[in-house]
Amino acid sequence: MAKPLRVGVAGLGVVGGALARLLARLHDDLATRTGRDIRITAISARSPGTRGLPLGEVAFFADPRELAARGEIDVFVELMGGADGPALESVTAALSRGLPVVTANKAMLAAHGLTLAALAEARTAPLAYEAAVGGGVPIIKTLREGLAGNNVRRVCGILNGTCNYILSRMETDGLPFEVCLAEAQRLGYAEADPTFDIGGFDTAHKLSILTSLAFGVRIAPEAIDIEGIERVSLADIAAAGELGFRIKLLGVAQRTAEGVEQRVHPTMVRKTTPIAEVMGVLNAVTIDADAVHELTLVGPGAGGEATASAVVADIADIAKGVRSAPFGVPTAALGELRRAPTRHHEGGYYIRLSVPDVPGAFAGIATRMAERGISLESIMQHGGARRSADRADQGHAAGEALRSVILITHATSEYLVREALDAIYADGVIDAPAQVIRIERE
Amino acid sequence: MAKPLRVGVAGLGVVGGALARLLARLHDDLATRTGRDIRITAISARSPGTRGLPLGEVAFFADPRELAARGEIDVFVELMGGADGPALESVTAALSRGLPVVTANKAMLAAHGLTLAALAEARTAPLAYEAAVGGGVPIIKTLREGLAGNNVRRVCGILNGTCNYILSRMETDGLPFEVCLAEAQRLGYAEADPTFDIGGFDTAHKLSILTSLAFGVRIAPEAIDIEGIERVSLADIAAAGELGFRIKLLGVAQRTAEGVEQRVHPTMVRKTTPIAEVMGVLNAVTIDADAVHELTLVGPGAGGEATASAVVADIADIAKGVRSAPFGVPTAALGELRRAPTRHHEGGYYIRLSVPDVPGAFAGIATRMAERGISLESIMQHGGARRSADRADQGHAAGEALRSVILITHATSEYLVREALDAIYADGVIDAPAQVIRIERE
Repeated sequence: MAKPLRVGVAGLGVVGGALARLLARLHDDLATRTGRDIRITAISARSPGTRGLPLGEVAFFADPRELAARGEIDVFVELMGGADGPALESVTAALSRGLPVVTANKAMLAAHGLTLAALAEARTAPLAYEAAVGGGVPIIKTLREGLAGNNVRRVCGILNGTCNYILSRMETDGLPFEVCLAEAQRLGYAEADPTFDIGGFDTAHKLSILTSLAFGVRIAPEAIDIEGIERVSLADIAAAGELGFRIKLLGVAQRTAEGVEQRVHPTMVRKTTPIAEVMGVLNAVTIDADAVHELTLVGPGAGGEATASAVVADIADIAKGVRSAPFGVPTAALGELRRAPTRHHEGGYYIRLSVPDVPGAFAGIATRMAERGISLESIMQHGGARRSADRADQGHAAGEALRSVILITHATSEYLVREALDAIYADGVIDAPAQVIRIERE
Repeated sequence: MAKPLRVGVAGLGVVGGALARLLARLHDDLATRTGRDIRITAISARSPGTRGLPLGEVAFFADPRELAARGEIDVFVELMGGADGPALESVTAALSRGLPVVTANKAMLAAHGLTLAALAEARTAPLAYEAAVGGGVPIIKTLREGLAGNNVRRVCGILNGTCNYILSRMETDGLPFEVCLAEAQRLGYAEADPTFDIGGFDTAHKLSILTSLAFGVRIAPEAIDIEGIERVSLADIAAAGELGFRIKLLGVAQRTAEGVEQRVHPTMVRKTTPIAEVMGVLNAVTIDADAVHELTLVGPGAGGEATASAVVADIADIAKGVRSAPFGVPTAALGELRRAPTRHHEGGYYIRLSVPDVPGAFAGIATRMAERGISLESIMQHGGARRSADRADQGHAAGEALRSVILITHATSEYLVREALDAIYADGVIDAPAQVIRIERE
């Protein structure tokens, strides 16, 4: 019989349960594929018991740190979540004794990935985390191994299924943000407190990991400009559609002359691009690299089975003795991330303004743009919502007509757009902040 | 300095040249990524000289078999092509002395992959071939490693950029097949004798490799039903568009109760699927597997740099000491491929018939379908091309009107469709063979 590989699993939630079922179902196949008898021999969970999972005889640890530090295991799998606390402590304990670690914990990696990678290196223990980004999509392996013959120029992805579900549903069924969010919560896609997803923070954690792998730089989640999808309206989605675009929450990291730009925000993408076609809870990542040019991966970004699939791939690599530096190169070789400010991002912009229907209002706006050399590719007007009475105190007469004006600029810099808008606000022509959405190049 | 990895390259054509440039450009990055000083130290080509490529001092071998058998190298890279002859002999020679081999040669792998894999195994030498399928798309690594935690149900892909270019151009610009083919030849996408591409044979070679990896079975290219794109007309493409479909040349392998079904043919795919959006010379592969559900990879299927990118990824894995069985499992563990006949394929069909505009003609056709329990989802009529005089001798009067009738069936079996058409031909109602295109499920 093949040499056993004893797996210790901390966390028996949705992913942990799916992992137990998958390892049982694939036991014989994995033995053929890896030459090892892979089985879970120890678990740690909130309460004892195997929850009806197909587990053989397993040691139970109330404390995951105990399992990591003293379990008779060959691999420690961390599926508890949380950037610090038991997750971080148990992973540290496992690596400290030279035990290979597999984790799906992007928050922990974003915060402590470098420290953990350095520890893993010092103990020559693998630290694998395919499941941390893109769920079942093998984006980590692709960046670290599949594209070894490339220098990456840009990584761009839909990394949060909840946001993509909400935006897809708003577009497909014309339902407002709040309704789609409530539905996502009812279906279990979004947490009761959805800020982490819809505010763009989950996407940012994942992006920081991809940035490090793609560009060989140290993880720097604090260097990401983050904007969530809360302000995306049906009017924006409809206007995007008319212009041949779709709105997606993207994480984008790209090399520029000034360093690496990392940003998370709602983005207009042309409908003909592969990423625009990604609807619902799917994830997608497009990598632009010098040899391969453009490569796109699309698949399930979440869900117990898909995430467990990624965990098993990591376990199989460990079983076969594959050794890769966690971030592709030794941590000492990772460069410092020089932050390229997003306000220097060059691209087109979608700007939606509610403009009072009075002579000269639009001319004033156009002038402020022109003063900064911002040229307009197109102008769309949707007319005549009545200003509601409760906003009359803001300087315009109640009942005055408002027009929704949508401007699409040619490539310009964020800095100039913000400056023009500040000038427009100062003129007192409009009284609600403009909606600004970046347009991603093809 | 890192331990050197001496690479011998046989074949300095488009891919070989791109490989030399890529290894030179990425030399320092690859040293950091793999811990090895990777450089080309020996070459074999039709004529001596380094063609202006950034090669240092290299040994030249007029005969690639000499390079493989006696070159002072650590990896042998075969980029000559051809299923037999020097390619097969040199790869055999390299593996025989335990030398790792990297090849982009799908024809050789389709014909001799199992023999070569068994030899590689016996000598514990890696045999890597990422570049053989999907160009720069890391589909081999994804199937072999990324999806180790899955049983694959189905692999389906656009594997030939030339065919996809022709079909895309026909649709986008309304140009007939012959014009688009000539253009593809002018642009260097298609060979002077394009049969290998447009006849579906190149796709079949690649599919046979994917089938083996996906299902753990022995390569069986002879068990593939192959149909090329020569008969796809603008009328078919237009009708597909009206029905919300696009026509793609797909390679499909799927598990069925009867075994493994492998087929290559023009296929109707719904426009909303990721694979339908893949236009031009891109390749795409969708994998349907039990844990990950659906995963799609899209990228450049050909081109020197993209293919060289895949070759470098294989070399980097070898440099890091990664060992995988060439087909995912030991060759002895590969099952025999039990062929599921395509005529048992269950799915919808698009059938285009030229029907004479006489009373009862269509009723006769519908009856033949109904007799076999084939139910129709939709019927479209495009009318009235005049039958040309030179076909009058086939049993109908010259000048008689013909209608193009398009039938879309509900799921049925190929067997019944062929039987119904045979009956319709026997009735003498129509005199040109029907165009039949399978509709792929979502």
